[in-house]
Amino acid sequence: MSQHRCSDVIKLAQALIQRPSVTPEDAGCQALINRRLAAIGFNIEEHFFVDTLNTWARKGNSGTHFCFAGHTDVVPTGDESAWDYAPFDGQIHNGMLHGRGAADMKGSLAAMIVATERFVEKQPSHKGSISFLITSDEEGPFINGTTRVIDLLEARGEKIDMCLVGEPSSRHQLGDVVKNGRRGSLTGHLTVKGKQGHVAYPHLADNPIHKVAPALAQLSETVWDNGNEYFPATSFQISNIQGGTGAGNVIPGTVYVQFNFRFSTQVTADELQHKVAEILQNHGLDYELNWIVNGLPFLTEPGQLLDVTLSAIEEVTGIESTPETSGGTSDGRFIAQTGCKVIELGPINATIHQLNECVSIQDLENLALIYERILEKLLT
Amino acid sequence: MSQHRCSDVIKLAQALIQRPSVTPEDAGCQALINRRLAAIGFNIEEHFFVDTLNTWARKGNSGTHFCFAGHTDVVPTGDESAWDYAPFDGQIHNGMLHGRGAADMKGSLAAMIVATERFVEKQPSHKGSISFLITSDEEGPFINGTTRVIDLLEARGEKIDMCLVGEPSSRHQLGDVVKNGRRGSLTGHLTVKGKQGHVAYPHLADNPIHKVAPALAQLSETVWDNGNEYFPATSFQISNIQGGTGAGNVIPGTVYVQFNFRFSTQVTADELQHKVAEILQNHGLDYELNWIVNGLPFLTEPGQLLDVTLSAIEEVTGIESTPETSGGTSDGRFIAQTGCKVIELGPINATIHQLNECVSIQDLENLALIYERILEKLLT
Repeated sequence: MSQHRCSDVIKLAQALIQRPSVTPEDAGCQALINRRLAAIGFNIEEHFFVDTLNTWARKGNSGTHFCFAGHTDVVPTGDESAWDYAPFDGQIHNGMLHGRGAADMKGSLAAMIVATERFVEKQPSHKGSISFLITSDEEGPFINGTTRVIDLLEARGEKIDMCLVGEPSSRHQLGDVVKNGRRGSLTGHLTVKGKQGHVAYPHLADNPIHKVAPALAQLSETVWDNGNEYFPATSFQISNIQGGTGAGNVIPGTVYVQFNFRFSTQVTADELQHKVAEILQNHGLDYELNWIVNGLPFLTEPGQLLDVTLSAIEEVTGIESTPETSGGTSDGRFIAQTGCKVIELGPINATIHQLNECVSIQDLENLALIYERILEKLLT
Repeated sequence: MSQHRCSDVIKLAQALIQRPSVTPEDAGCQALINRRLAAIGFNIEEHFFVDTLNTWARKGNSGTHFCFAGHTDVVPTGDESAWDYAPFDGQIHNGMLHGRGAADMKGSLAAMIVATERFVEKQPSHKGSISFLITSDEEGPFINGTTRVIDLLEARGEKIDMCLVGEPSSRHQLGDVVKNGRRGSLTGHLTVKGKQGHVAYPHLADNPIHKVAPALAQLSETVWDNGNEYFPATSFQISNIQGGTGAGNVIPGTVYVQFNFRFSTQVTADELQHKVAEILQNHGLDYELNWIVNGLPFLTEPGQLLDVTLSAIEEVTGIESTPETSGGTSDGRFIAQTGCKVIELGPINATIHQLNECVSIQDLENLALIYERILEKLLT
């Protein structure tokens, strides 16, 4: 391992990686974080819901309320022996910190903590409030994590004004992309019914695959909207289709289709559901359709939070960053529903959820500097 | 059990049912049959191929060569305790002989043997030749059964002129339907290729389900032919479709579709394959398509064999029979490829391949009489 000039961030990131917190386990990560935050004056609340540990830590009670949000849980490693370096070791090789969660998102957590420590040390009587919303269920079903803490804050009237989520937003260089919104995600589970029979006697059966095919063709060709200044056009994708008994001589009785919308703020989940039902009905299908709204879209329009974030990135890295709303969903959607401005900024996401996840230690150092700048700009 | 006036046929059918010859097992059925045939002057050849026992038995070497064809194997019973009567007992209740294979087709085999014994006893110096082609693999993959015996006969130049297959052809009354042909069966295994990706990044992927849907719609709407005097129109049915990783957020890389044609003599397997390829290519699909010709269609046009069969049925039962080509495939297709005329005639098929398979003992007696009449009409 190489030695590094300023290793507070890296040491903490390593310590977090060494706690094997496969979702929804926290494995002691939040205890470690919370000791650090308590030491600099944060009030710590731990909320354990069902199988998920959540932390709500806050320093200050007035003025602008800025929140760092993140998660300690990581996705499974797969076959550990296939990794170049053991995934829960936190080894450093050639300037890269290796391990599950290095980029998503224990590196960001370490950068947030150290940035806050440095800021509080320099600005002991800063303006406003700083908080941390940390969960161990962002990679899982996200039922007992951020959304429940948000419910709790809402119930007691505690408002967050601005939030930075440490999700790995960067594409090629640290800070080249920040997320100022996310598309909504809507999943449909469709079962089209026909009548089972023998392929030799098709007049006695009703093949649901034949019936659904033209409807799927129409759904996949439909333009749902054209997006807008901040969002790409809403997309429809069939992720799974399943029909048949396996036997070659049986016409199946049903066919199952799962599809997903990633939708912009130009359309609502309700509108999409109605349009799909209309298409299925126009094709005369007998069907059952269950919808799951995985997340509503959110958008943080240009304003103080975005300005401050972009200028902090430029000051530290020299890079002019691009706000985007592309990609998957994140816990940002739960926080944004309260009216809070939400930005996502974290390291390069090239290796997340893969074998040999890793992050540049220089990027983590710079990320801590960017986070510290943001605190300075907002709270001094 | 009731007693029956003329029980030779029933006793033999029971003895065959009591040999649990689940495909490809013969369980001693052919040994029993072959002792009976040898006793009346048949030359017996047993051909064991891989896992399948086949009998080729022939009496006479010249003149019209008439063959009885059938199989000793039966489909599995499923849960034996769900049967009203143990499936390998051969019990008789209320005039019905119960057991797996009673109708498909140990009853027919018993009727053929006894009819032949009676005929040979009455007509010891009959014209022409009589043969039996019996296999233990008609219900299975039919690779080592009838088709291999036919190959062997072809190789040594031994020709069958006319063949009666004992498949249960009757619908409501014994003899109401004979099969004078069968449709062809052609199966396609289609894999359409796209590019796997994340549903949140559809521009980086290429969804094969979206691509195949309009092609499937077109295939399922295509009129392949209008059939003819003897055949219903060719039918196309998708039996299986499978695409997706199971995950809701992954665009699959491929989708698999299995489909089956039942086709008339108006179109060839080659023509169907070309038309399908044309449709897939017109939709711009990148695909792999493997074809299996399960059976070519055959037709025995009106002539001596059909005439004799219809009049024998009418003489014994008073029923005017209808020749049909409907239903699945049978071993008749292998025999017909040699140029042999093939007719299928057997008991009512209402219970075949089901729990509580059974056959009327009166029908089996009458079936033996019909078979005997056919021998008389052709060979005296």
